Amino acid sequence: MRMIDLIIKKRDKQVLTKEEIHYIISEYSADRIPDYQVSALLMAIFLNGLSDEELFCMCNEMIHSGEVLDFSNIPGIKVDKHSTGGVGDKVSLILAPVVAACGGIIPMMSGRGLGHTGGTLDKLESIAGFKVFLEGKKINQILSTCGFVMMGQTEKMVPADKRLYALRDVTGTVDSIPLIASSIMSKKIAEGTDALVMDLKCGTGAFMKTLEKARTLGQKIMGIGKLANKKVGVLITNMDQPIGNMIGNYLEVIESAETLKGKGPADLVEVTIELAARMIYFAEKASSITEGRKLALASISSGKAYELFVKNIEMQGGDTSYVEKYDKYPTQYQKDILSPDTGYIEELEAYQMGIASTIIGAGRQKKEDIIDYACGIELFKKVGHQVNNGDKIATIYYNSPQNIEQSVKLCNDAIKISKNPIKEPPVIIEDLKL
Amino acid sequence: MRMIDLIIKKRDKQVLTKEEIHYIISEYSADRIPDYQVSALLMAIFLNGLSDEELFCMCNEMIHSGEVLDFSNIPGIKVDKHSTGGVGDKVSLILAPVVAACGGIIPMMSGRGLGHTGGTLDKLESIAGFKVFLEGKKINQILSTCGFVMMGQTEKMVPADKRLYALRDVTGTVDSIPLIASSIMSKKIAEGTDALVMDLKCGTGAFMKTLEKARTLGQKIMGIGKLANKKVGVLITNMDQPIGNMIGNYLEVIESAETLKGKGPADLVEVTIELAARMIYFAEKASSITEGRKLALASISSGKAYELFVKNIEMQGGDTSYVEKYDKYPTQYQKDILSPDTGYIEELEAYQMGIASTIIGAGRQKKEDIIDYACGIELFKKVGHQVNNGDKIATIYYNSPQNIEQSVKLCNDAIKISKNPIKEPPVIIEDLKL
Repeated sequence: MRMIDLIIKKRDKQVLTKEEIHYIISEYSADRIPDYQVSALLMAIFLNGLSDEELFCMCNEMIHSGEVLDFSNIPGIKVDKHSTGGVGDKVSLILAPVVAACGGIIPMMSGRGLGHTGGTLDKLESIAGFKVFLEGKKINQILSTCGFVMMGQTEKMVPADKRLYALRDVTGTVDSIPLIASSIMSKKIAEGTDALVMDLKCGTGAFMKTLEKARTLGQKIMGIGKLANKKVGVLITNMDQPIGNMIGNYLEVIESAETLKGKGPADLVEVTIELAARMIYFAEKASSITEGRKLALASISSGKAYELFVKNIEMQGGDTSYVEKYDKYPTQYQKDILSPDTGYIEELEAYQMGIASTIIGAGRQKKEDIIDYACGIELFKKVGHQVNNGDKIATIYYNSPQNIEQSVKLCNDAIKISKNPIKEPPVIIEDLKL
Repeated sequence: MRMIDLIIKKRDKQVLTKEEIHYIISEYSADRIPDYQVSALLMAIFLNGLSDEELFCMCNEMIHSGEVLDFSNIPGIKVDKHSTGGVGDKVSLILAPVVAACGGIIPMMSGRGLGHTGGTLDKLESIAGFKVFLEGKKINQILSTCGFVMMGQTEKMVPADKRLYALRDVTGTVDSIPLIASSIMSKKIAEGTDALVMDLKCGTGAFMKTLEKARTLGQKIMGIGKLANKKVGVLITNMDQPIGNMIGNYLEVIESAETLKGKGPADLVEVTIELAARMIYFAEKASSITEGRKLALASISSGKAYELFVKNIEMQGGDTSYVEKYDKYPTQYQKDILSPDTGYIEELEAYQMGIASTIIGAGRQKKEDIIDYACGIELFKKVGHQVNNGDKIATIYYNSPQNIEQSVKLCNDAIKISKNPIKEPPVIIEDLKL
């Protein structure tokens, strides 16, 4: 087999066989195919696509390029959730204890924040002592006790995906829907989950800006799931404005704790409950999604989900007082963003709000950047709310005055006020069917 | 400027600016852009194309990546011809002296054979002593005396094209029409020609298998020519069967000498005269193509073209007896290919005939292969000719019995006999207009 023939095949829109995809991934992993051939193939894939079968094979090859987790010693169906990332997206922190409280087993593997979005691992690490990298025995122990564990992906898992991603990152092939799908699914299958619910964010603050693209990605993911014999549900959710009221690492931990205490904002609760309902159903702890929804809501009102949340923090080495009292990270400064007019909020553009939060220390622009857990933005109004001229729409919390002017400008630019009433936008856009 | 942004631009079908193309070619030439980024861009160009303006800029950047020849000290309009390559294509050897005999100045730069096609440089080198690499002063002297010079491209000319070609060769991006066009035109403009006639071969033995592809390439080349202010004519000519009756290096020198002596086969004469007519017209030595055609024919019948052919061989160090007596390369063996049936020749598939000739020593399968100038194939019948069962259609001349069986099989496979009369195919398929 020769790599050049496989490049030409994909260039000419032909379908690569299982053996050919095995050759590509295994030989590239073994350094026997140069980067310049793989990057030509990646661009051909970007422009010509991959079939569901090709995607499934690629995904399988990536999974078996490294370590695969095995939780078969823990009884029950393992379920997980993946979000394509958005602004203020702390759903995982609430969802995992909710589903665990209903009997689901969730070996949840998350990532770090980059660009305008935050990452679950960073948020958890704002809780002093919280460890996201744990040895196998400890992971098993936490998973059996709490029903969920919050982990970072180790170096040994899906190394081929890491390598391909690094090459995609410098060759303009990151935004390829099939490559995104196989990257997501290889990680999720390697972590040992039996079922998966996708929170596919769509809108200005998401990687998928249009419903059409979100649908295509969702369908590709469901296609791989079907061939891999995993149950997969996909909800396309709104990311035109931030989700919930808090943006920033510890601010989002506070909001997660409050939500688990039954005091969460409506949009955040809705997304979490809808995802939880499907995970509970996939875990066979409810006979329908409707029943799953009821159980999820009950796990919050009974306090059981919050209890597991605290138990998990304790077992992962975290200081539980961080979710009981919220005085851990006072910021030196705060700056209010006021409404420039009287009317209705028409836009709170998520991407700009995300960047506004990132540049005052809540996120990373480069991988090496250090996060200030205290910083972020609190929203007091959302799209559809009525405001008077001078009303406080948001507060920026920060410690370093560097970038604050740009951050304020981004927040002001993100806000659009309409004279006419604006309907609150839907939170769930679509429950995707294959 | 960042290379990744330029890759993404081309990936998304946007047009690259002059400055961006300058950045790509100059930074790549200076080793400041890695191969893996350039190969991703090449695949994006392959699949999304280049506009005429982009092509012209790319061509210009490649020209100025190295040495540019300058014949402005020799009066008169410089004209050249380029062929996309075919089987039995010895047109350059005849064309250059014909046009020179009519007053044109032809600084002709040619290449070597690879794969199923032969190369002008190899054919000339079958004449003992003939030098295709000459120093500048000598080139000028030959060009002023003979009106034409036959050269190989030096290492110092268009180095960016050589580098890009090497990368295209291993990344499945060779057959890209815009990249082929810019490669051809950068070499031709760098050699200092004012006008160019393209012999765009089309058919089974050509790189362009379909008329549609040939037209697209021709139009791209004319587009560059227009922007570069060079007169460019494009003839699409038939390469379904070999041109002329001889395939193989010295065999083609013999056929060229015979054609210049007025004894050439009709198809070879027609292509040569049509190309010559346009070159003579471009050189302003005729007021129309029709007049150019008459002058070209007269240069053969008067013996003037042949005289210049011999003079050129002498000045380039060649032994002129090689074109007077043809007994220089007797082969050890010969094998006749006989007609399997009575009827009319429907096909003499050029690609298979080219490979049949290559593998018995007339060509190179790899760049390092050594050519046996003596070897080749002589055709006694062409498409449309009547044959009886057992008539000699071709003879294979060879010295090493290795591969002869495969060569015979290829020749037999290349021949198709029809019971019904077959019309002789046209030699000139189209005179392309922009």
